[in-house]
Amino acid sequence: MPKPQAVLFDAYGTLFDVYSVGLRAEQLFPGRGARLAVLWRERQIDYSRLVTMCGDPARHRPFWELTERALRYAIQALVPQAVDDWAAYEPAAASLMNQYRHLSAFPENREVIQALRLQGVTTGILSNGDPEMLGIALRSAGLDGLLDPVISAEDARAYKVSPQLYALGEQATGLPRSQILFVSANAWDVLGATWFGYQTLWVNRANLPFEQLDTQPTAIGTNLRAVLDFF
Amino acid sequence: MPKPQAVLFDAYGTLFDVYSVGLRAEQLFPGRGARLAVLWRERQIDYSRLVTMCGDPARHRPFWELTERALRYAIQALVPQAVDDWAAYEPAAASLMNQYRHLSAFPENREVIQALRLQGVTTGILSNGDPEMLGIALRSAGLDGLLDPVISAEDARAYKVSPQLYALGEQATGLPRSQILFVSANAWDVLGATWFGYQTLWVNRANLPFEQLDTQPTAIGTNLRAVLDFF
Repeated sequence: MPKPQAVLFDAYGTLFDVYSVGLRAEQLFPGRGARLAVLWRERQIDYSRLVTMCGDPARHRPFWELTERALRYAIQALVPQAVDDWAAYEPAAASLMNQYRHLSAFPENREVIQALRLQGVTTGILSNGDPEMLGIALRSAGLDGLLDPVISAEDARAYKVSPQLYALGEQATGLPRSQILFVSANAWDVLGATWFGYQTLWVNRANLPFEQLDTQPTAIGTNLRAVLDFF
Repeated sequence: MPKPQAVLFDAYGTLFDVYSVGLRAEQLFPGRGARLAVLWRERQIDYSRLVTMCGDPARHRPFWELTERALRYAIQALVPQAVDDWAAYEPAAASLMNQYRHLSAFPENREVIQALRLQGVTTGILSNGDPEMLGIALRSAGLDGLLDPVISAEDARAYKVSPQLYALGEQATGLPRSQILFVSANAWDVLGATWFGYQTLWVNRANLPFEQLDTQPTAIGTNLRAVLDFF
């Protein structure tokens, strides 16, 4: 397999810890914070898939908006009275959305990305996130300026695992897919990228099994440092 | 809204109780049966969406096969040693798959479908399931002969919420979508069918909120009897 010329990182779950909202969620919904964070994340992914799969471009919504909708669902699923009195729960939702805007970044990110750049490797992002939320998250994490291109689902108006979105990685780097390494902590995203034809690294932070669909990632690691083994 | 001329039912979750595998799962994996049933169902739906969304027809697999793969994932996620020694867990998986073949049907199904047929309404199925598993499930539940057409994702080689699959309801009944009532207990399926243009009934058996994506079903009920309110 040719040595990759570019590395494209997924953002949510890979560079940013989507479950770092759990502490604030626990303060707001004692005893149910972790459950809320999981439900929220599940629904966020579900909604992104549904709007793309339905095939109607008019159903597309930016990821920030889908994230808000997913949070509303998750709160209403955990707290039935929120269905009838959503206004009473809006402040909690706003607080969690604000937290989501500034998710914690994983500690090894910066060092790994800088090491790649020192070797002349292109380092970018290919994410479901919209440009505004990605920009804020990258600045918060001190990663702005280290990642270019920043490819967003908004550029394709389609979410993962649509090939329209993965294809933008080739366009933006000018490289064939076989020379691009795609890195994600989300197994399903790694699956989609492998199907598309990228070299792939699954960052298995949670020690989970890989998806059971006859496809394996090029490599598996436990944190982002495993990227460096490709070089 | 015109009175529907045909009613198309979703199968899994709507006519058949996908969580009726929980008891057997609990016998096989004490203390984790309910969790296994939920993980299994989640992965089954995930896998169906991923193979359709990736846009490559060669990735399509029949629902029975995706259901097996999802179960393998769920067992490996709950029991880490199953990753390295899957053979030891194959008998448990086979037992659960056999249970899945003969899921419990909800008690009101037969009476509701018969009442519709007495009124001359076409009653059929529009399901992610493949024809063989649907046939066995319908016979097991004593519903064979009461549902025609039986529309399968295999006919479209695409899973919900792909419009290619929903469109087969119009083709099979010869009716425009506005005259067809689609009934599902899965909120996301009702969402997709409403987007497509069907009249829809969400059978909200578990008292959950509806999906928060600016679309409401035509009606909501708590069991299948709510279908009769359309007539």
